[in-house]
Amino acid sequence: MPSNITQKLIKNHLISGEMIPGEEIGLKIDQTLTQDATGTMVMLELEAMGLERAKTEASAQYVDHNLIQVDSKNPDDHLFLESATRRFGIYFSRPGNGVSHPVHMQRLAKPGKTLLGSDSHTCANGCMGMLAMGAGGIDVAMAIAGEPFYVKMPKVWGVKLTGELPDWVSAKDVILEMLRRHGVKGGVGKVIEYYGPGVKTLSAMDRHVIANMGAELGATGTVFPSDEEIKRFLKEQGREGDWILLEADDGATYDINEELNLSDVVPLIAKPSSPGNVVPVSEVEGTPIYQSYIGSSANPGYRDFAIAAEIVKGKHIADGISFDVNPTSRQMLTDLVRESHIASLLQSGARLHQAGCNGCIGMGQAPATGRNSLRTTPRNFPGRSGTREDSVFLCSPETAAVSALTGKITDPRNANIQYPKVDQPKNPVIDTKLLDEPLPYEEAKKVKLQKGPNIASIPKMDEMPDKMELPILLKMGDNISTDEILAGGARVLPYRSNLPEISKFTFEIIDRTYYTRAKETGEHAVVGGFNYGQGSSREHAALAPRYLGLRVALVKDFARIHWQNLVNFGVLPITFINEEDYNSLEQGDVLELEDIRKKIAQGNELTISVKGKNKEMKVKHLLSERQIDIILAGGLINWVKKRQAERTV
Amino acid sequence: MPSNITQKLIKNHLISGEMIPGEEIGLKIDQTLTQDATGTMVMLELEAMGLERAKTEASAQYVDHNLIQVDSKNPDDHLFLESATRRFGIYFSRPGNGVSHPVHMQRLAKPGKTLLGSDSHTCANGCMGMLAMGAGGIDVAMAIAGEPFYVKMPKVWGVKLTGELPDWVSAKDVILEMLRRHGVKGGVGKVIEYYGPGVKTLSAMDRHVIANMGAELGATGTVFPSDEEIKRFLKEQGREGDWILLEADDGATYDINEELNLSDVVPLIAKPSSPGNVVPVSEVEGTPIYQSYIGSSANPGYRDFAIAAEIVKGKHIADGISFDVNPTSRQMLTDLVRESHIASLLQSGARLHQAGCNGCIGMGQAPATGRNSLRTTPRNFPGRSGTREDSVFLCSPETAAVSALTGKITDPRNANIQYPKVDQPKNPVIDTKLLDEPLPYEEAKKVKLQKGPNIASIPKMDEMPDKMELPILLKMGDNISTDEILAGGARVLPYRSNLPEISKFTFEIIDRTYYTRAKETGEHAVVGGFNYGQGSSREHAALAPRYLGLRVALVKDFARIHWQNLVNFGVLPITFINEEDYNSLEQGDVLELEDIRKKIAQGNELTISVKGKNKEMKVKHLLSERQIDIILAGGLINWVKKRQAERTV
Repeated sequence: MPSNITQKLIKNHLISGEMIPGEEIGLKIDQTLTQDATGTMVMLELEAMGLERAKTEASAQYVDHNLIQVDSKNPDDHLFLESATRRFGIYFSRPGNGVSHPVHMQRLAKPGKTLLGSDSHTCANGCMGMLAMGAGGIDVAMAIAGEPFYVKMPKVWGVKLTGELPDWVSAKDVILEMLRRHGVKGGVGKVIEYYGPGVKTLSAMDRHVIANMGAELGATGTVFPSDEEIKRFLKEQGREGDWILLEADDGATYDINEELNLSDVVPLIAKPSSPGNVVPVSEVEGTPIYQSYIGSSANPGYRDFAIAAEIVKGKHIADGISFDVNPTSRQMLTDLVRESHIASLLQSGARLHQAGCNGCIGMGQAPATGRNSLRTTPRNFPGRSGTREDSVFLCSPETAAVSALTGKITDPRNANIQYPKVDQPKNPVIDTKLLDEPLPYEEAKKVKLQKGPNIASIPKMDEMPDKMELPILLKMGDNISTDEILAGGARVLPYRSNLPEISKFTFEIIDRTYYTRAKETGEHAVVGGFNYGQGSSREHAALAPRYLGLRVALVKDFARIHWQNLVNFGVLPITFINEEDYNSLEQGDVLELEDIRKKIAQGNELTISVKGKNKEMKVKHLLSERQIDIILAGGLINWVKKRQAERTV
Repeated sequence: MPSNITQKLIKNHLISGEMIPGEEIGLKIDQTLTQDATGTMVMLELEAMGLERAKTEASAQYVDHNLIQVDSKNPDDHLFLESATRRFGIYFSRPGNGVSHPVHMQRLAKPGKTLLGSDSHTCANGCMGMLAMGAGGIDVAMAIAGEPFYVKMPKVWGVKLTGELPDWVSAKDVILEMLRRHGVKGGVGKVIEYYGPGVKTLSAMDRHVIANMGAELGATGTVFPSDEEIKRFLKEQGREGDWILLEADDGATYDINEELNLSDVVPLIAKPSSPGNVVPVSEVEGTPIYQSYIGSSANPGYRDFAIAAEIVKGKHIADGISFDVNPTSRQMLTDLVRESHIASLLQSGARLHQAGCNGCIGMGQAPATGRNSLRTTPRNFPGRSGTREDSVFLCSPETAAVSALTGKITDPRNANIQYPKVDQPKNPVIDTKLLDEPLPYEEAKKVKLQKGPNIASIPKMDEMPDKMELPILLKMGDNISTDEILAGGARVLPYRSNLPEISKFTFEIIDRTYYTRAKETGEHAVVGGFNYGQGSSREHAALAPRYLGLRVALVKDFARIHWQNLVNFGVLPITFINEEDYNSLEQGDVLELEDIRKKIAQGNELTISVKGKNKEMKVKHLLSERQIDIILAGGLINWVKKRQAERTV
C-alpha cells in the first residue's frame, strides 16, 4: 500500500502499538533536543536515572532561553548544562550560538529521522523530512535513555500546496493562513503533511517557518518532503551526506485532505492575543505601533532578516519606534553581517540583540504599557511578552519592516517600495562550533557535574509501598490549575533546577501552610474536584508535591497532562466512582490503602477506607500496564533506572 | 598670570566664590547629560519645578542603562523620558543608540564648555577639553533649570605625559597605572590635567578611556587639552566648527605635579574587588577565567573593539568561555560591522549584545558563581556584576581578547601574536540620529508627559513651618547607611520613578512599621548616632522619608552626601551639641521647635524642647546661607520654582 511520508516515518520507528489513529504507539527516537529552560531538569533526571551515556543517535542541548544573566543563576545553569552534556555524551551549543530549532536544522537534522524535543516548537525540524515533536522534559529524558516515546497515532492531514507566493507575501503568511482557516486547535491529534507542486517554491527555511508554527495549530507534528531543496540546504551546511530522498509514494492518501494555493495568500496578521486570531493586514492597517520585532524560531532564516534589511535600507524608522532585531544563530548573523544587511538595519535605527530566543519567550524586549507590538514571533498569548495586558500582533518580516518605517501597521504592498529580491549569501559561513561534539566515553565518564548553589540533584524517591495511611492535607474544589499547584513566574521559575527550594511554593496560592504541614507529615494525599490540574503542562506541579510526600491524588476527574505527569513522578491518580464520596471526606481524614501493589495491577477498581470513620469507598484508576509498572516503581526515573540496570546486566 | 586649562575653564564659568582650593564655587553649566536610571527622577523634578524649557546650551537624555525590558517598567520609562525631553527642549537618544559618554562625545561635546551629568562617569568628556563632572540628579535638574553648580574649588593635579605606549599596552593601562600609584581616593578634591608631549600620541578616544576612569580615582574631573587631535575627531564627526584650541598657557603651574612616561607602562589589571587593586597582568597570569568582556564607557572606542577583533580573527575562543561584546554606540557598531571586525568577533565565538551599558552596571551578563570574569569596564566593586561574591578583574581590550583565546588571564605580550595595527575606519559613519534635536518651544509646550502606571509625579511639598511638634518615629544607632534608609536592589529600584511606591520600603530594614506609622503620624523626626547616612549617594534615601513627613534628622554626625541630600529635599539636618542628649531621647518623644524660620537664619545653634518632659537641648546646623534658603523653601524644588517664577515676572 502506498504510504505518505508521515506513515513511512512512523512505520520505520514503530516499537509498539498499531498505526490506527488514536491508539497509543511507541516510537524509537533518533535525536533529541533540549533547551536550557527545560534542559536543566532533564539533565538532573538523567543523573537520577544513573544514565551512563545517551543512547540516541544524536542528542543536543542548546542554551537559548535564559541569556540575560542578571545574577549567577543563568550562568550557573549554563555551566551545569555544559558539564552534563560532557558527562552524558550530548552535543552542546553554548550561549550566543542561537535558537535550538534553526541551529539543529543547520547542524544535526537528518531526513528520515525522529526528533523529540523539550520545547514546543521542536516540530520546526519537520521541514527536513523528519518526524519532529515537542514533549515534556521527562519524556525527552526517557528518549535520551533509549526508551520509546509514547504518543497517540495521529491522523495525517495532507495539505496540497499549489501556485507560488506573490511579492510581499512569505512563508509566515502561509502558516497564518492555516491558522486563519483552522484556529489554534485545528491540528490536535494530527500530523500536517505538506505536498504538491507548491512545496518546491519554498526554501528549506521557508518550510521551517511553516513547520514551526504547526505548534500553534496544536498539531503533533508537521512534515515536509526531503527533496532537492533539502539536498541543497544540507550541501550548503557541508552535510550533503546526510541527505536522503523522502517523498510520499504515488497514490499515497491522507486522513484529511486540503488544498492551499500559494498565489492566493495575502499579508496576514494575528491580532492580540492568540495566534489563531488572524485577519488580513489590511483590516488593521493604520494601527499605531510602539515596537517592531524581527527574529525568533518562527522567522529564523537569513532571508527573513535580509529582506527586512533591504526594505529599511537607506531609510530611518519612525520616531518613538523600538525596532528590535533578534538574530537566530551566530552563523546566520555572521552571514548577515558579511552581506551588509546588519549595517542597513543598524543605520535604519534598529536595536541589534544577541542571538537567542529573547523577547519571544518574555526574556527582555517587553513593550510599553498600552502600546502595540508587532512581532514575527510565533505566539502572542496574553502577558507572554513580559508586559501585563500586552497587545502583540504576529506577522511576516515584510510587514514588520515596512511598519517600522511608517510607525503603524502597514500592508507592505501599499508601501510604495519595490519588492526586494534577496539572494542567498555568496559564501555562506559554516560554523561547526555551533555545536560542541560529545566527548568520547572514556573521557566523558570522568566528568563531574558542575552544580552552582541553585542546582540540586533530584533526591531518590521510593517505590509504591504495599500499605499506606495517608492523611488528606488539602481538600480542594473544581478546576484547580497547575498554576495553583505550583506557580510559574519570575518569583518561582528561577528555582526550577532546585527541587527543595521550588517545593516551598507548592499549593502556596491555595494554602500557605501546606509546605510546612507536608514536611511534618511526610506521606499524604490530596482531594480535589473536577478538572484537577488544568492549565500549563509544567512537570514541577507533579514533581514538587511528590517530593513533599504526595502519594495519592483523589479527585472527581483529571486534566489530561497533569494526570500523566502525576503518573510519571509516581503519584497515584485516582477518581471517585461515586462522586458523592467527595462530600464525605474532610481535610485531616486518613485514607487507608491495603495490599495496594497487587490491587493496582489486578484491575482498575480499588477500595479505600477512611481511618476511624468506619467508611469505605470505591475509586478507580485509568493506568495502562506500562503506567502501572511506572507507578509501582515510584515513577519514571526509578522505572527506567531499573531497566537500565537490567540491560547492563 | 599664566593659567592651566582647568583654571581657564573654571574662570570662564565662575558665578560665585573664589578660586581657592577647598572654597565653594558656583559654576555656570553649559551642557548636561542624564541617563535613564537617574534621568526619570530628574525629569520628574523638572516637572515639579514647573520648568518651561531647559536653560542650558545643550542638555541630552540618553537611554543606556535599563535596556533589558523584562516587563513594562523599562519601556514605560523610555517613553516617559522621550516625552519629557520633547516637553523641556532636551536632546533625546533612544534605546540602542549607545552609552551616554561616547555618544555625547560624538554628537555634542565642545571644547571649552562645562558639562554636568547624573552619571559618575560624566568626567569622560573631559577628554574633549571640557570641565565634565558627575553629580546627583537634583544637581543636574538645577543646572537644566539654569542654576549654577556648587562645588569645592579643586586642586589641579598636573600629569605630564612623556614617551609613547609600547605594543600591547593601551590607554586603559595608563589609567590603571594612575590607580596603581594613587588608589581609589587619590583624586579626591582634584582635577587631573594631562599635558606634555605624550598627549598627542593618544587619540581622542584613548583620552576618553583615561578621563572616564578619573571617577575611579575619586577626582572631581579630568581635563585634556583641545588640540589638533580633537579637531580631527570633531571633523570626523562632521563638527569641525565646534572646535577651539584650548591649552595651558606657557608657564602655567599646577597644585600637584607628576610625570608619567608612557613608554614604561606595562599591561595592568585590577584584581577583585576594587579598581585600585592594580598589579601587572604578569602577576596573575594563568588564573582561569569564565568570562571575557569588552565594552563599556571605559573602553568605548572603535579601536578598542577592532584590536580585539584582529587578535581573535581566524581563531576560536577557549571552551567554556563567554566572550561578551558590548558595543558602545550604534555608530561605532556600524563602523565595526562595515570594517569586518564584527564578523571576526562572531566567528571567534563572541556573543554580540545590544549597544548600551549592559553588564557594566549589572544589567545582564553576570558571571557564574565562583568563576573569574575579565572585563574592560571601569568598576569591579563586590556584587556589581549581579553575582554575589563575584570575582571581576579589570583590564585592557588587548588583555581581554588574548585571555578569551587562552581561557586564562594572559599577559598579551606573551601570546605569540603579532601586535595588530588598527586603522580608523575608511569611511566612518556619522549617525546624526544618535540624538533627536529638541523640539522648537512652540511645539514643545504642547507636549504632554507620557506616564506609565509606574511613574508618579513628585507631590508638592510645603515650606518649613515656623513651629513644629515632631514625634520621634525611630531612634537608631551609629553608622546607619542609605541602604538601611532605603534599600537598592532589584526589589526596590524599579520604583525609583514612583515616590508613593518606593517610600513603602523606607527604613524597612530597621523597622517594618515605620512606613505605616509615618503615614499615620505625618510630620515627624528621626534620631541617629554617628556617621548617619553613610554609603550610596542615592537621593531617594532623603526624598522618600521627606515624602512620608520627615522634617528633622537629629543625629551625632552625618555622612556628607546624605547630609546634602537631606538639605536638598527640605529635611533639616541637625546634630547634638551635647552628645549625651542622645541618651535621654526615646522613640515616641515629641520634639518641639519654635520660631524656627527666624532661628535657623540667625545662627547655627537651635534649642529644642521635649514635650511633656520639661527638657531642653542645644543642637546645631551647618547650613550655608544658600542652604538655609533651600531648607526654608522646603527643598531645592520649591526654591528653584520660586526663582523661576521671580525671573519670569
